[in-house]
Amino acid sequence: MILTVTLNTALDITYRVRSLRPHASHRVQEVVERPGGKGVNVARVLAALGHEVTVTGFAGGATGRAVRERLAAVAAVRDALVGVAGATRRTIAVVDELTGDTTQLNEPGPQVTPAEWAAFQETYGRLLGGASAVALCGSLPPGVPVGAYAGLIRAARAAEVPVLLDTSGEPLRRGVAARPDIVKPNTEELAELTGSHEPLRAAQDTRRRGAHAVVASLGADGLLAHTPEGRWRAAPPARVHGNPTGAGDSAVAGLLSGLVERLPWPERLARAVALSAATVRATAAGEFDRGAYEELVGRVAVTCAVSAA
Amino acid sequence: MILTVTLNTALDITYRVRSLRPHASHRVQEVVERPGGKGVNVARVLAALGHEVTVTGFAGGATGRAVRERLAAVAAVRDALVGVAGATRRTIAVVDELTGDTTQLNEPGPQVTPAEWAAFQETYGRLLGGASAVALCGSLPPGVPVGAYAGLIRAARAAEVPVLLDTSGEPLRRGVAARPDIVKPNTEELAELTGSHEPLRAAQDTRRRGAHAVVASLGADGLLAHTPEGRWRAAPPARVHGNPTGAGDSAVAGLLSGLVERLPWPERLARAVALSAATVRATAAGEFDRGAYEELVGRVAVTCAVSAA
Repeated sequence: MILTVTLNTALDITYRVRSLRPHASHRVQEVVERPGGKGVNVARVLAALGHEVTVTGFAGGATGRAVRERLAAVAAVRDALVGVAGATRRTIAVVDELTGDTTQLNEPGPQVTPAEWAAFQETYGRLLGGASAVALCGSLPPGVPVGAYAGLIRAARAAEVPVLLDTSGEPLRRGVAARPDIVKPNTEELAELTGSHEPLRAAQDTRRRGAHAVVASLGADGLLAHTPEGRWRAAPPARVHGNPTGAGDSAVAGLLSGLVERLPWPERLARAVALSAATVRATAAGEFDRGAYEELVGRVAVTCAVSAA
Repeated sequence: MILTVTLNTALDITYRVRSLRPHASHRVQEVVERPGGKGVNVARVLAALGHEVTVTGFAGGATGRAVRERLAAVAAVRDALVGVAGATRRTIAVVDELTGDTTQLNEPGPQVTPAEWAAFQETYGRLLGGASAVALCGSLPPGVPVGAYAGLIRAARAAEVPVLLDTSGEPLRRGVAARPDIVKPNTEELAELTGSHEPLRAAQDTRRRGAHAVVASLGADGLLAHTPEGRWRAAPPARVHGNPTGAGDSAVAGLLSGLVERLPWPERLARAVALSAATVRATAAGEFDRGAYEELVGRVAVTCAVSAA
């Protein structure tokens, strides 16, 4: 079983409006709701790839109930979320039908108490026993200590479960120091962490800070991997147009499934890039287009990355 | 007991963001949730004025549960909402902290089935038995026939319960023809109904179409009443600054409480205008400032309205 952790789960709501104008009133044309938060998205893609997945993190309030009801409808994903008194956050994506652009409104998430955080750590420890890999994904809700991911990484390493970290800011900085197997920052997060805007150099520095392997997302240009086995760039065959929501989470699912299947790095990266591109191309935000994935996976160019230094 | 009907109840959500920019991502600074829909707002103000109120209409899904949980916390308001399979709509008010302006996103509401509509009519008929007055408020959710309010008005008249209608468009047009005791359109709704942009003339025409009395909202300028007892303008002593959300609903509560207390029209109008202004002045959207209300109610200028014709 692969375990994904989403401390700040979300009810992802997409609104279609004819044209978003600040300070006006809008009739929403269409409402779509999905269980969300990065680790939940990763779990959905892993399940679609045929893996057994368990989802943990926090859920509470009416929005938490809505997340769990919708999660129950996803086959091969087991719900091991921990209840909290506060309400799970909503994220609202307002899609402008005229321009196709999206405006995003993200609630901060529930206040987590020390007792709730302790209950989560106990659940997490128990779940690690049956896990072949674990992904720690996304932002921390208020009340969770900023060193939370560092502690969860140390627990995974102690249990000899490979661990991937996908977060940003101070939780990323502290998490990297706890020596995770893989971190997956984007170039902005990498620059914030290391001060370098040159991705290969920044990835190298991130490894020096503790990460075993770094896979940096270069947006539409694909991925850059800096690992003990080598350095690669993996790029889609052509620029893909569509909605990038969830593309990074699909890449994490590709990396994690490749890890548990013991694929060599170039194949893991090809899978991650193809899943990511197939997510951008899908009609529904955050889903991936299976036909596009199968067509793309053999066509991703994986080349050796040479340092600029 | 005063009965308020809200066929399209809502979970009213207010977001504070630093500055709303289309196509950007925003961290919401503050989230406030309230049970909403016009009739629910009217009920809350009536309860604050010391009246016993029953709320009916539809509620469903996770959002419907949230509305009912929050309604249960309001003293003197009884919940007689009818369950539906669809989910109660959300309305999202995004308040821009820089400009103070509000951007509104309104979901359409649940699809109501013919069986659910029949169940509501039965509940409504039973509740009319104990009602001293009834307010029919707001838009119709999908599936409810456009002549719904006309039918509910005829039922109230048959039960000899005075009935106030506050809606717009075709439901207003059909409702007026069913001879309600009071309609409370704003000048835009009045113009859409009658084709006249001269409020006194439009109000007179609305009475010819069937309404017993017409109280038109003139926004910050107060109210204009065209009744069998006379015609009045009621204006606040000074222009009030603040958030106009719910000001119209507070006016309805003023009119309705004045009706059941058998106040003469000028006193009803003064109360409605003062409540409305005290709502604009309140810090929380849709609440009214009791101190401001008590200070304003004696200072509303009610004058005879003379026809322009």
